[in-house]
Amino acid sequence: MAKSLESEHPIKAYGYAARDSSGVLSPLTFSRRATGEKDVRFKVLYCGICHTDLHFVKNEWGISTFPAIPGHEIVGMVTEVGSKVDNFKVGDKVGVGCLVGSCRSCQSCANDLENYCPKQILTYGSPYYDGTFTYGGYSDHMVANEHFVLRWPENLPLDSGSPLLCAGITTYSPLRHFGLDKPGLKVGVVGLGGLGHVAVKFAKAFGAEVTVFSTTPAKKQEALDGLKADHFIVSKDPEQMKSVAGSLDGIIDTVSATHPIAPLLSVLKPSGKLVLVGIPQKPLELSAFSLIMGRKIITGSAMGGMKETQEMLDFAAEHGITADIELIPIDYVNTAMERVFKSDVRYRFVIDVANSLKTA
Amino acid sequence: MAKSLESEHPIKAYGYAARDSSGVLSPLTFSRRATGEKDVRFKVLYCGICHTDLHFVKNEWGISTFPAIPGHEIVGMVTEVGSKVDNFKVGDKVGVGCLVGSCRSCQSCANDLENYCPKQILTYGSPYYDGTFTYGGYSDHMVANEHFVLRWPENLPLDSGSPLLCAGITTYSPLRHFGLDKPGLKVGVVGLGGLGHVAVKFAKAFGAEVTVFSTTPAKKQEALDGLKADHFIVSKDPEQMKSVAGSLDGIIDTVSATHPIAPLLSVLKPSGKLVLVGIPQKPLELSAFSLIMGRKIITGSAMGGMKETQEMLDFAAEHGITADIELIPIDYVNTAMERVFKSDVRYRFVIDVANSLKTA
Repeated sequence: MAKSLESEHPIKAYGYAARDSSGVLSPLTFSRRATGEKDVRFKVLYCGICHTDLHFVKNEWGISTFPAIPGHEIVGMVTEVGSKVDNFKVGDKVGVGCLVGSCRSCQSCANDLENYCPKQILTYGSPYYDGTFTYGGYSDHMVANEHFVLRWPENLPLDSGSPLLCAGITTYSPLRHFGLDKPGLKVGVVGLGGLGHVAVKFAKAFGAEVTVFSTTPAKKQEALDGLKADHFIVSKDPEQMKSVAGSLDGIIDTVSATHPIAPLLSVLKPSGKLVLVGIPQKPLELSAFSLIMGRKIITGSAMGGMKETQEMLDFAAEHGITADIELIPIDYVNTAMERVFKSDVRYRFVIDVANSLKTA
Repeated sequence: MAKSLESEHPIKAYGYAARDSSGVLSPLTFSRRATGEKDVRFKVLYCGICHTDLHFVKNEWGISTFPAIPGHEIVGMVTEVGSKVDNFKVGDKVGVGCLVGSCRSCQSCANDLENYCPKQILTYGSPYYDGTFTYGGYSDHMVANEHFVLRWPENLPLDSGSPLLCAGITTYSPLRHFGLDKPGLKVGVVGLGGLGHVAVKFAKAFGAEVTVFSTTPAKKQEALDGLKADHFIVSKDPEQMKSVAGSLDGIIDTVSATHPIAPLLSVLKPSGKLVLVGIPQKPLELSAFSLIMGRKIITGSAMGGMKETQEMLDFAAEHGITADIELIPIDYVNTAMERVFKSDVRYRFVIDVANSLKTA
């Protein structure tokens, strides 16, 4: 298996892979395709560690393939472009997020919503058009069709900007789509992790009055002082929840553990929106009554389309929005994964790939 | 109790009441208030039997008060108006639906959404402004503030039109509010009962292509031939459900039994809306993933405001929409309740109150 992986494509590549659902990552030599006419090849500089990477290497959703090279918050520098690439040249700074392909012809694709294309190709663990599997950004270089490559804004930091490619767009997109981007709205953010802390920053940049909901009272100071949220509510405390009953226009719920949603619906105004961006493994309990009394809405959102992801990066650059990160060398990745599992990170690990991944 | 009920107000009244949670209805003499300056007094002609009436007389929600006189699909003829009543005169045909009061000052009331006012007063079983309980339309006459009285359109039948006051507005309002009222949209209706059959008629009148979902294959002919639905799907049949996967713009779900909603989400297009108007007693199971992949929406809707209820009656009159009813004398009401419990009615019982309720 390792041998065919090394020879299935002409260009030698090197990365960190899990070999099985132990999820332990170690160096792997593999290969990537030659630069096609619409392809952009780039050296990976930085790659964020998303909780999804952990689910993937441990095969927690039962859909992983091994060896598994995760990473979908990838920032790099272009080293080669195909003959028909229009928008990139060697030396450009670029990003690749969760997607590297889609059908390009369905209604979702036509509406710049590649993220809802039923034939979307994820950056890792998906079969590519040619039938080989995709490998993510915990690797020395990437090659991707230019449609799925983002221009990196000049003044957006490469390292702390990288998590925007997943955590950023996953929270920016629903704030925009569901109309929670108007100044003066009251917006809640549930869960103060990789996604949540960026959601607070975007919501503040849109002019919202932001309330953070967390089960961890100790996060109050970080939320208010560090992230400039306006209010902090301990979501397990019925009295605190009651104090904001019926007051919010919308909530971005980033929690992927199973959790009660009735209390969150109770703090929404009539017609308020609860947007799920985390994916709990077990079903949530939904009381029809709590929706019906006030025409409240529960919905969800996944990633974002390419056009909107570019817009998000440009908005972040303009407003000075980055993730709060801990920069690590790639040989720290297994420890980092354990710490992600324990939510022991403020708020995102980013791998300093170019400076720490040495070719075998 | 019966004595004070008979004397708490100056005007003698007579109706059918349940004395306890057996839910058995029998004649009761009680009293209603004198006609206030903004009040309209009317003789009850017809009153529909809503499933909620059954929940109420059996105290299934644990909030009933006894004696309990149900009925909130009430059509009548005005017999007296208060000195400051502007819009009604003796002899007018009128309707009263689910509401007889609200705070008139909150945001919901200001937006003509009395149905979402936290201080709404239901037509039966609620404390009125004066502290006495409200009694519904299974009675000889009613008195209500004119704000909560509807003008009955000239050409709308009094008997088969009466269920529109609850079943009608409960389905009309979400079709309007959630934008499912545009010609050419694909709209689903789940459950073919009192609410469902009227939902089909409104959706067709709006120009939608209507698919009925039912667990009862035998309802196919009624749905297609009787109600002119375009398609019929047995919702328990995975193959039939698959045949319409991802195809609908919205669904009005009228089922109040606990039921799986994931299959319903699967037949929605991206951004499609599942609107719950039934209230299952137990929580529904919600998979976040099924919402997230396509930004699908689950929401709910309860009744309608007074302005929209009038609009709905006028629309129904214009488009010849009424309920399919079985007209019964009031002494059949206990049998009718049993048949409602068994869903053995096509599709609504209406009590011929004026012709069958004789004063003791």
